[in-house]
Amino acid sequence: MLAIDRTNEEFLYAQVVDLINEKVHSGALRPGDRLPSLRRLSDKLEVSVPTVRQAYLELERRGRVEARPKSGYYVQAKRHNPLVRVGCRDCKPVEVRCRKLIERVYDAIHQPGVLPLGIANPGMALPATLTLHRAMKRIMSRAEDRALAYAPMNGEPGLRRQIAFRYLNQGGAVDPGDIIITNGGQEALSLALKSVASAGDVVAVESPAYMGLLELIESLDMMALEIETCPVEGVNLESLERALDSHDVRVCMFSSSLYNPLGCATTDAHRRELVDLLESRDIPLIEDDVYGELLFEGPRPRPAQFFSRKGLVLTCASFSKTVAPGYRVGWLLPGRQLEAARKLKRAMSCSSGLLTQMTLAEHMATGDYDRHLKRLKPVLKQNAERMTAAVERHFPAETGISNPRGGSVLWVELPRTVDSAEMFDRAMADNISIMPGTVFAARNRYRNFIRLSFGHPWSDAIDDGIRRLAALVRELA
Amino acid sequence: MLAIDRTNEEFLYAQVVDLINEKVHSGALRPGDRLPSLRRLSDKLEVSVPTVRQAYLELERRGRVEARPKSGYYVQAKRHNPLVRVGCRDCKPVEVRCRKLIERVYDAIHQPGVLPLGIANPGMALPATLTLHRAMKRIMSRAEDRALAYAPMNGEPGLRRQIAFRYLNQGGAVDPGDIIITNGGQEALSLALKSVASAGDVVAVESPAYMGLLELIESLDMMALEIETCPVEGVNLESLERALDSHDVRVCMFSSSLYNPLGCATTDAHRRELVDLLESRDIPLIEDDVYGELLFEGPRPRPAQFFSRKGLVLTCASFSKTVAPGYRVGWLLPGRQLEAARKLKRAMSCSSGLLTQMTLAEHMATGDYDRHLKRLKPVLKQNAERMTAAVERHFPAETGISNPRGGSVLWVELPRTVDSAEMFDRAMADNISIMPGTVFAARNRYRNFIRLSFGHPWSDAIDDGIRRLAALVRELA
Repeated sequence: MLAIDRTNEEFLYAQVVDLINEKVHSGALRPGDRLPSLRRLSDKLEVSVPTVRQAYLELERRGRVEARPKSGYYVQAKRHNPLVRVGCRDCKPVEVRCRKLIERVYDAIHQPGVLPLGIANPGMALPATLTLHRAMKRIMSRAEDRALAYAPMNGEPGLRRQIAFRYLNQGGAVDPGDIIITNGGQEALSLALKSVASAGDVVAVESPAYMGLLELIESLDMMALEIETCPVEGVNLESLERALDSHDVRVCMFSSSLYNPLGCATTDAHRRELVDLLESRDIPLIEDDVYGELLFEGPRPRPAQFFSRKGLVLTCASFSKTVAPGYRVGWLLPGRQLEAARKLKRAMSCSSGLLTQMTLAEHMATGDYDRHLKRLKPVLKQNAERMTAAVERHFPAETGISNPRGGSVLWVELPRTVDSAEMFDRAMADNISIMPGTVFAARNRYRNFIRLSFGHPWSDAIDDGIRRLAALVRELA
Repeated sequence: MLAIDRTNEEFLYAQVVDLINEKVHSGALRPGDRLPSLRRLSDKLEVSVPTVRQAYLELERRGRVEARPKSGYYVQAKRHNPLVRVGCRDCKPVEVRCRKLIERVYDAIHQPGVLPLGIANPGMALPATLTLHRAMKRIMSRAEDRALAYAPMNGEPGLRRQIAFRYLNQGGAVDPGDIIITNGGQEALSLALKSVASAGDVVAVESPAYMGLLELIESLDMMALEIETCPVEGVNLESLERALDSHDVRVCMFSSSLYNPLGCATTDAHRRELVDLLESRDIPLIEDDVYGELLFEGPRPRPAQFFSRKGLVLTCASFSKTVAPGYRVGWLLPGRQLEAARKLKRAMSCSSGLLTQMTLAEHMATGDYDRHLKRLKPVLKQNAERMTAAVERHFPAETGISNPRGGSVLWVELPRTVDSAEMFDRAMADNISIMPGTVFAARNRYRNFIRLSFGHPWSDAIDDGIRRLAALVRELA
């Protein structure tokens, strides 16, 4: 029903945007349809013409409508091609060989003056700088000399309590003593994997998989077994079961609720079934839950840890994606491997930074952390829409695009002839970083895919960057 | 010559202290000798009686003299027994088995309300809190959002430049690109060892060795070969050569200039000879140089790295011992292993904390770091004297005590019948933490040794703690 609610505190133009979006979703307006003229909608809704114009401009910005000169506004033709199922049905365990390219990619990411579409950094879409800096200053005044001291090996008790409290709010009983604070999520993954597997062991991973995971497997001389993964539902459990029957899988390492780079979100039922399957065979599951807080909508999904009955789930998480990657504070719930993981943590890095841990505990205790997440998620959602629209607008029609349910990345399938490693080099020459698809596979896969990050305040520079990338794609196709 | 220099800017009483010390060193005053009365020395030196009294009190505090009621001040009887050569002459490689005790020790160290004589934390003897907090606040204002971002994988360039510049001042040409910033010295050791050795390999270590090193060797399933070590000169190079002839040593891990827990300092000639010996056999040397800045006297010793011709030396260092253990910022100069170490760093922890790195770079650039070290070293030296005097005063006469040339620990040999693990438990029950000797050996050695830390502002509580420990020793002996 086309009606404006004047008791609603939202801006009128935003309500107009929602009305048009609803009509598109319901099918009342279809791609290619012309929107009512400014004056006509203004009369009908009893709002001013500038309000309607502002709404149309916002819809254009989001890629929902396009302005055709001297003709009016039209619902954008939908060119979004959903991705098809990826990863092979029956892979074999292989050694990982992706380092050479990753090395170049990591070097590129930090070059100043480069448009950073390669780095997944969701928190930077709306930096919590002010509240974090304030929290840190309070801690410095309060802790004085103690702020410089060694943190306990397993982490500052105050932060472990806050994390446990947060799990409790989701219905999971985690004792602060079950948590080990780590140097970011990567160290959590590293400790978890070393706790349960050795050189030569087979590690099952989703496909495409987070490149840091593959690098870890490579550095420990383990083998990766890529499991067929659905870009909507996550790891295919039937394929996984077949793989477990055929191969001596030592451990599984999967994303928890939100996948990177696919952007899909698994259901509670999926995670429960996964844990049941693995625990029935006494195979540990390492879940990478660094994106659990960043689903655009709905409550935070429950980590697989909550469905464990045997203590075989190891949960890796971090503050890097939500708020401060530079703090290098993550954590590990090692389940039954608590003792092994504690020993490894001590031997590998002794303890983690104290001041940053105290600052994050303060940030959580004051509610600033929660408020930050509440504001961040709609910004990321809007960025996802804008970047999707920009890719749809500029890239060739046959481009496939993921439909991220959270996080900060789009997974983009380019025409088959495009080599993303070559595209990476060409984009860097044009001062744009991207993540080439091949780094998300143990070897030679996703050659014509790229990952683009929308974890930055949206700007015309990003839209222009997408346009320049599209030109590159056409050149390389 | 007994004379006071009134143009000297030092306090008069401090000059009196020096004069007495000189006479003791020269043998003009011997242990047990009575010092001149206050009035007599006051007349002779033409200073006031209160000045002489202050000097005598300071000498008493340092354990140089003792006051005997109604009799006067006497030169303290010297009961310091130098340690004899330790470590066996011809050890065999063994698996390390010290974890169980280390676990208990680490847990104990961080308990609140415990007198922390177990933890080696020299910087805390004179915390640089004010200047570090100021530097961090400046960085927060200046860097804003960037302060939260990922640091480059190999470290913040500004900090690597400062470190390189510091090496340059010592005559070593280190390129900032040759440095990898790590999560403290322990991660540097871990990356270094993994770069050159694998499970089953033999690692030669000094004896007694830093417990974190032994734990690392254990966690990587390597073997430790303990080399005979002199408590004055460091690793015995003839014993080392014999060990290299007899065993397939993959890598050596030794302290650089200052040993922990022995406290001895090697000469430049010793380090040069060591590097020549190892490089002639193509065996890498990992040097632990976290204490290099903390020799009480003289210029900073040159790391073994400077004597390398083949690039086989890997240098591990840190800001933990000099200024801020809780920052977890260390570094690695991996020499020829640069590429391998970069890859491992990425896989193990991605990168290190950015804000703390920027703060340390600022602290160095402003000169605050240097000024801090200049003030810290005499405080540590004085603490060493005081703790030595306290141990000599209270412990049984047969106690052996190291003569630390820097750092913050005393290595104490107790009567043979004392079990330091039992002593550790008893001391903890009395709210004092100590480090039992057995954790410094691969297995079953140094049972009657303890390590005591003087890296705290000196207080009566510490003196009292030593007194209570001495009572425990007598009980357990």
